[in-house]
Amino acid sequence: MPAGGLSSSSPPRTPANDYYRADDDEAWVWTQIKAEARRDAESEPALASYLYSTILSHSSLERSLAFHLGNKLCSSTLLSTLLYDLFLNTFSSDPSLRAAAVADLRAARVRDPACISFSHCLLNYKGYLACQAHRVAHKLWTQSRRPLALALQSRISDVFAIDIHPAAKIGKGVLFDHATGVVIGETAVVGNNVSILHHVTLGGTGKASGDRHPKIGDGVLIGAGATILGNVNIGEGAKIGAGSVVLIDVPPRTTAVGNPARLVGGKETPVKHEEFPGESMDHTSFISEWSDYII
Amino acid sequence: MPAGGLSSSSPPRTPANDYYRADDDEAWVWTQIKAEARRDAESEPALASYLYSTILSHSSLERSLAFHLGNKLCSSTLLSTLLYDLFLNTFSSDPSLRAAAVADLRAARVRDPACISFSHCLLNYKGYLACQAHRVAHKLWTQSRRPLALALQSRISDVFAIDIHPAAKIGKGVLFDHATGVVIGETAVVGNNVSILHHVTLGGTGKASGDRHPKIGDGVLIGAGATILGNVNIGEGAKIGAGSVVLIDVPPRTTAVGNPARLVGGKETPVKHEEFPGESMDHTSFISEWSDYII
Amino acid sequence: MPAGGLSSSSPPRTPANDYYRADDDEAWVWTQIKAEARRDAESEPALASYLYSTILSHSSLERSLAFHLGNKLCSSTLLSTLLYDLFLNTFSSDPSLRAAAVADLRAARVRDPACISFSHCLLNYKGYLACQAHRVAHKLWTQSRRPLALALQSRISDVFAIDIHPAAKIGKGVLFDHATGVVIGETAVVGNNVSILHHVTLGGTGKASGDRHPKIGDGVLIGAGATILGNVNIGEGAKIGAGSVVLIDVPPRTTAVGNPARLVGGKETPVKHEEFPGESMDHTSFISEWSDYII
Amino acid sequence: MPAGGLSSSSPPRTPANDYYRADDDEAWVWTQIKAEARRDAESEPALASYLYSTILSHSSLERSLAFHLGNKLCSSTLLSTLLYDLFLNTFSSDPSLRAAAVADLRAARVRDPACISFSHCLLNYKGYLACQAHRVAHKLWTQSRRPLALALQSRISDVFAIDIHPAAKIGKGVLFDHATGVVIGETAVVGNNVSILHHVTLGGTGKASGDRHPKIGDGVLIGAGATILGNVNIGEGAKIGAGSVVLIDVPPRTTAVGNPARLVGGKETPVKHEEFPGESMDHTSFISEWSDYII
Amino acid sequence: MPAGGLSSSSPPRTPANDYYRADDDEAWVWTQIKAEARRDAESEPALASYLYSTILSHSSLERSLAFHLGNKLCSSTLLSTLLYDLFLNTFSSDPSLRAAAVADLRAARVRDPACISFSHCLLNYKGYLACQAHRVAHKLWTQSRRPLALALQSRISDVFAIDIHPAAKIGKGVLFDHATGVVIGETAVVGNNVSILHHVTLGGTGKASGDRHPKIGDGVLIGAGATILGNVNIGEGAKIGAGSVVLIDVPPRTTAVGNPARLVGGKETPVKHEEFPGESMDHTSFISEWSDYII
Amino acid sequence: MPAGGLSSSSPPRTPANDYYRADDDEAWVWTQIKAEARRDAESEPALASYLYSTILSHSSLERSLAFHLGNKLCSSTLLSTLLYDLFLNTFSSDPSLRAAAVADLRAARVRDPACISFSHCLLNYKGYLACQAHRVAHKLWTQSRRPLALALQSRISDVFAIDIHPAAKIGKGVLFDHATGVVIGETAVVGNNVSILHHVTLGGTGKASGDRHPKIGDGVLIGAGATILGNVNIGEGAKIGAGSVVLIDVPPRTTAVGNPARLVGGKETPVKHEEFPGESMDHTSFISEWSDYII
Repeated sequence: MPAGGLSSSSPPRTPANDYYRADDDEAWVWTQIKAEARRDAESEPALASYLYSTILSHSSLERSLAFHLGNKLCSSTLLSTLLYDLFLNTFSSDPSLRAAAVADLRAARVRDPACISFSHCLLNYKGYLACQAHRVAHKLWTQSRRPLALALQSRISDVFAIDIHPAAKIGKGVLFDHATGVVIGETAVVGNNVSILHHVTLGGTGKASGDRHPKIGDGVLIGAGATILGNVNIGEGAKIGAGSVVLIDVPPRTTAVGNPARLVGGKETPVKHEEFPGESMDHTSFISEWSDYII
Repeated sequence: MPAGGLSSSSPPRTPANDYYRADDDEAWVWTQIKAEARRDAESEPALASYLYSTILSHSSLERSLAFHLGNKLCSSTLLSTLLYDLFLNTFSSDPSLRAAAVADLRAARVRDPACISFSHCLLNYKGYLACQAHRVAHKLWTQSRRPLALALQSRISDVFAIDIHPAAKIGKGVLFDHATGVVIGETAVVGNNVSILHHVTLGGTGKASGDRHPKIGDGVLIGAGATILGNVNIGEGAKIGAGSVVLIDVPPRTTAVGNPARLVGGKETPVKHEEFPGESMDHTSFISEWSDYII
Repeated sequence: MPAGGLSSSSPPRTPANDYYRADDDEAWVWTQIKAEARRDAESEPALASYLYSTILSHSSLERSLAFHLGNKLCSSTLLSTLLYDLFLNTFSSDPSLRAAAVADLRAARVRDPACISFSHCLLNYKGYLACQAHRVAHKLWTQSRRPLALALQSRISDVFAIDIHPAAKIGKGVLFDHATGVVIGETAVVGNNVSILHHVTLGGTGKASGDRHPKIGDGVLIGAGATILGNVNIGEGAKIGAGSVVLIDVPPRTTAVGNPARLVGGKETPVKHEEFPGESMDHTSFISEWSDYII
Repeated sequence: MPAGGLSSSSPPRTPANDYYRADDDEAWVWTQIKAEARRDAESEPALASYLYSTILSHSSLERSLAFHLGNKLCSSTLLSTLLYDLFLNTFSSDPSLRAAAVADLRAARVRDPACISFSHCLLNYKGYLACQAHRVAHKLWTQSRRPLALALQSRISDVFAIDIHPAAKIGKGVLFDHATGVVIGETAVVGNNVSILHHVTLGGTGKASGDRHPKIGDGVLIGAGATILGNVNIGEGAKIGAGSVVLIDVPPRTTAVGNPARLVGGKETPVKHEEFPGESMDHTSFISEWSDYII
Repeated sequence: MPAGGLSSSSPPRTPANDYYRADDDEAWVWTQIKAEARRDAESEPALASYLYSTILSHSSLERSLAFHLGNKLCSSTLLSTLLYDLFLNTFSSDPSLRAAAVADLRAARVRDPACISFSHCLLNYKGYLACQAHRVAHKLWTQSRRPLALALQSRISDVFAIDIHPAAKIGKGVLFDHATGVVIGETAVVGNNVSILHHVTLGGTGKASGDRHPKIGDGVLIGAGATILGNVNIGEGAKIGAGSVVLIDVPPRTTAVGNPARLVGGKETPVKHEEFPGESMDHTSFISEWSDYII
Repeated sequence: MPAGGLSSSSPPRTPANDYYRADDDEAWVWTQIKAEARRDAESEPALASYLYSTILSHSSLERSLAFHLGNKLCSSTLLSTLLYDLFLNTFSSDPSLRAAAVADLRAARVRDPACISFSHCLLNYKGYLACQAHRVAHKLWTQSRRPLALALQSRISDVFAIDIHPAAKIGKGVLFDHATGVVIGETAVVGNNVSILHHVTLGGTGKASGDRHPKIGDGVLIGAGATILGNVNIGEGAKIGAGSVVLIDVPPRTTAVGNPARLVGGKETPVKHEEFPGESMDHTSFISEWSDYII
């Protein structure tokens, strides 16, 4: 993320490293969001009503998020007031959900060059909104409120075209970029600081029940349209190329590409990269090393 | 499907094989659905209103389905009352549509381990709902009510992100799992007991009109993201691996994988499997036999 | 397109070539659309109200389109009246948007054998509607009304599952067929007379900002599920096979297929075709030449 | 009603007296309504969608009425589909409700010079619509479905500002003109061919339960704002002047006016009129005879 | 209220006088309401969804009321979630509003023979709902949140046709019966245990500002359509006949009737009654004593 | 109107008399309204979204009014976009409608002490909104677009409980205070600077067609619940007491009260007042002179 991106919104912070400190993150981000929304409301009267109803009339990020999700996910048979109540109560009672909501905002802001502000992500990123709603559905699932959790999953799938089973575990600082078509199965686990592009499937292997979905390590990057099936491990910092089909474990910090997928560098001597691609979002640097790639 | 799955909902049935008998299936399934919904309404007051409006206030599966589809697919210019009327009249007048609706419920319940009840499928599976709405659109198409059929197709595509041309023929006992992004063209035919994952395309070969889309045999399993193009035959019981691109016929009970797709075992001596993968939902058992698959 | 297709709607045209003349195209197409809608309203009373509200009550294509898009894209926090006003004002003030709307209608009508009338495309093609709404968002973006442009992008992505960054440049005569899951990034450029199937990604290469998305030449055809990443050139008249993953330039009038993609005919001596596949929509004629394609 | 009124809509009837014949009235009136709506849809495109959805897309008066009432009376917690179903089932199963709906249409058409067509009454007269909805609520009441009947009463009171207890009995050929503010209590009875203006109260006498509301004879006319309280009889053909407060029986074919009300002509020798004012709608002919009326 | 009325709903109370005790009234009434709703949901499936969403899914009367009012009073520009939040926060923070809500429920239940249950009043009585919403608007007014208070007044007037200025002070145990058309001005004061019928005006005397509206004593009964104008006192226990126009003070426990209003018994020796008519709801017992009343 | 009322909103005007000058009134009032709305949006975040959508996002009073009326009067069968278009086109094309809208705003602001700002009237006064919508319906009526005019009348009656026949002629500077229950018939004429309270009827005399409704002179004040029937003249500056029933002409500048109505001062020597009560809003000054008024 270019420094200019954030500095243009003038956060009154002095130490460079405080950007990632955990405490009072939520308050700082919320202050940013309100400042962004106020600036946009002033410059664009046609959007001011929208910005006031979704952000500026609320006293906290959790209220704004509960309002926005309630209005997005409601239907004629699941009223917005009911969903608003459910989201607000869940966010209010569980600080970890709020912390994750903040971490995910930061992930989008830092990793996605098209993300021009926190409020842009909060209002417009279906991947972000689906993920926050999933966290609530997941909490309901762990409380054995399964029918309600599944109803939420269904609404998220209808509205955002993102289908995450409420039992799936998703870490913090996760970016779902574009997000349309993402499918994540019941026993999948996604680590922290993972980036997942659209049309990605973390699917099962068949009708057998039990633990049957992928486990994605921290810092993994999964490219658009990649399909990972079965109870396989994608090691931390691994990279899965766009359109790849992966049915076997991928070692940490390696890159798997193609259909069927192969490791860049070969099965025996795969190339190991240093950075965590889930954070660097480097989709294509492997090309020169991928001998098989020719046009 | 694990036996425990159904026994937890306590169907009062004694002979083991009666599960698949055709007669009064509809009544039995409807009784199950109401019992499930009643149990869920009692345990989850926040969902009770939803369960009563969608299921418990109705006297039959066809009424419940017509109500649910009408409310899901309506828009400000296509009112829910109009759609409800259309769905109810069509379901009421055509027993084969009702039988297919029951067969599809059973398919999801038996094949998908994430499907915990009939009512879960009825209420929440966009693939199930899109398929039932398609059957009505198809009926309208055969009655030469094409503009209405196409308007329905469009609403299904908007609401569920599933695009099935109303002329396409879909068999019974079909499972669309996750279902987002499925595209099925005008002259496609899908057999009975087929399972189709999300992002699957049964597409045409270009702008030429006429018979130009795939024919899918009974019991076929098509993995996530598979693309099958042209007037090709996928033989009964064949399996198409996730992400495969298929442009040529696939023999019965063989497995095609990859992009470009190859037969597991090779073109000349493909491995033949016994079971019908569309029913067994075995996505990945071919891996060990797929010499080319390496990471 | 079979001649019978259009002749059935009886356009009063004598010279064969006037179909493509630019002047008063809009008026002629609008007259066709009203005639089609009137015929359908008469034959299908259940759809008449819909046809009157969306088409027959309007005095021009731009009003019909503004109304339809306003009602499709509105939400409880972005009212239809606001969007209608925005669309109508933008279409009214910019003739090039109206010309593009007409050219895109023609593209669907000519290239897609499933498109039985102009009104069918106008009312029901989510790709068509998303593209017209994108053109308005793009105009707002160029006027530095970025928050509003991004809000529109978000609504288009929610409602149609099509995600086009408002900065992306899209030519005229473009067909988005089926369209679900299409993702087009910020610095992408799409030429004239291009045809793009569903699930196509024109994506970036990572978190670096700047010019990082594909440039698609005139007359290109991009098959379903193809993923093109990075600032690469797809030469005019090239064809990208379904499911292909393309990370490098593709020469004009050649065909790239597979994951990883290869040129049909080989890297050194690729087969060059004559026609513009974006217009001919020939998806699969390369098969016989693609030595590697076996099942 | 001036003859020209109906003749302008060209009913193909020859015998003068057939206007009031009972048989196939419903079909004839429905034919008229459709003809009126078709004419209006042609002359006013802005209203055509409304006319098609409310009238022209339906195959019978009962369907049109059920649709219109369902959409008028629905709320976010009482869905239009539910109400449509309820109204349609009730109208379909009880011919007397349909006959009353036709008789009330005729009453408005004949007695109200501002009523320019049957469709005008059907679509726009809140008094007419409230009365038909009340008849359904009354039927539910007699079937001991009291909570549903009371919910309907409440919706009618919210939407139309007309409050009729579902137990109240209302005859046929009744005109509620303007109708805002009408209140009719639980044990009230209204005869046939009665005309009731807006703000009229047929109220009780206190908190005692039992039979405590007025009984209105056939052919009575009750002027705007008149208040009739208690279990009193208003004799057939009586006229109650606007703003009158009536707490005692009124003899047949007499006129009561004022607050407190007096009989025109005096208590002992009241003037008796010939015609039935509920049908003639003569509001003010008593003035010259009302010695007390001076300004 | 007939004893049978309440006993039919079987409250488990032993001491006769505990009906009016103040403590834990709210809990007891809420228990009653839930029992009534549960009984009605069981006997009437078509209403069950409504009863669950409005009552049975909520944990307290204040939540049920906030939900119901939010959904009734919302509009496309004042969303239900915003109003729900506002109502819930206000009810939660002010016990006197909750106590008044309970007292008003009891007033309807005891005084109105047509009120068959607490839930009937809570769900269906527009006078009850308007009064509770007014109390919130009044609280906002006293907090100097005048624009919001006036917006609420406007919504109440649109939805219920009841116009109460947010500055008006309304006591507890007040019954607005039927309620359509009630108008209460800015400086009006209404005492405790007052009963007010529909179309009653407590109006001002002109454009002069300042204290200009009526003061209604405890236990007053104001009949339908009565108009009381100016800063006049209606003494405690007074009765104002239906349709009366009152511009001067009315002594306690006397009855004023007619237009212009006169005291029953005459100005000098008015008849004094014992009971509080606002509680006894005796509308018409004065008739025999009102010498002037003749028909 | 107390001077402090307007000065509190600080209009930057120096000459005292410019308040009533006709030219650029609209611009000045619109500037006031925006300033009021901006102030309120700042002090009340919960209302800011509402104020932006209804006022602050619009560039003119006519756009704000068209938006507000479109959203208030729409229904599921008459969409807000259609009504917005209709209102905006009519206001834009007819300056006299805009001038009347401004004059009516001033009338409320000057005459009604409860009207604290122009924006309060614009947003919240149902009488104001119904009157502006009526002016559009009247214009349609004069253009022979009768079915649309009558549909508008019906929506106004449903939404605001105000029933004005579209043929009725209403002057400028008219105040409908509270307004619920007002009924104005087809051939009624209302002059300039008239004030009409709620529940007022300007009704006909029966079923005879032709000119049959009251003619109200300039500056008349009609009190709450007054009923004026027949083609009678209410002379300029006359005052009709609340609850009066008037069936005969009332001379200019006299006061009629009671049911039946009498002239204050007697028929032969009525008291003549100087001011125009429609402007002074003096409802009750006649009391001391009304010998008959006693309690």
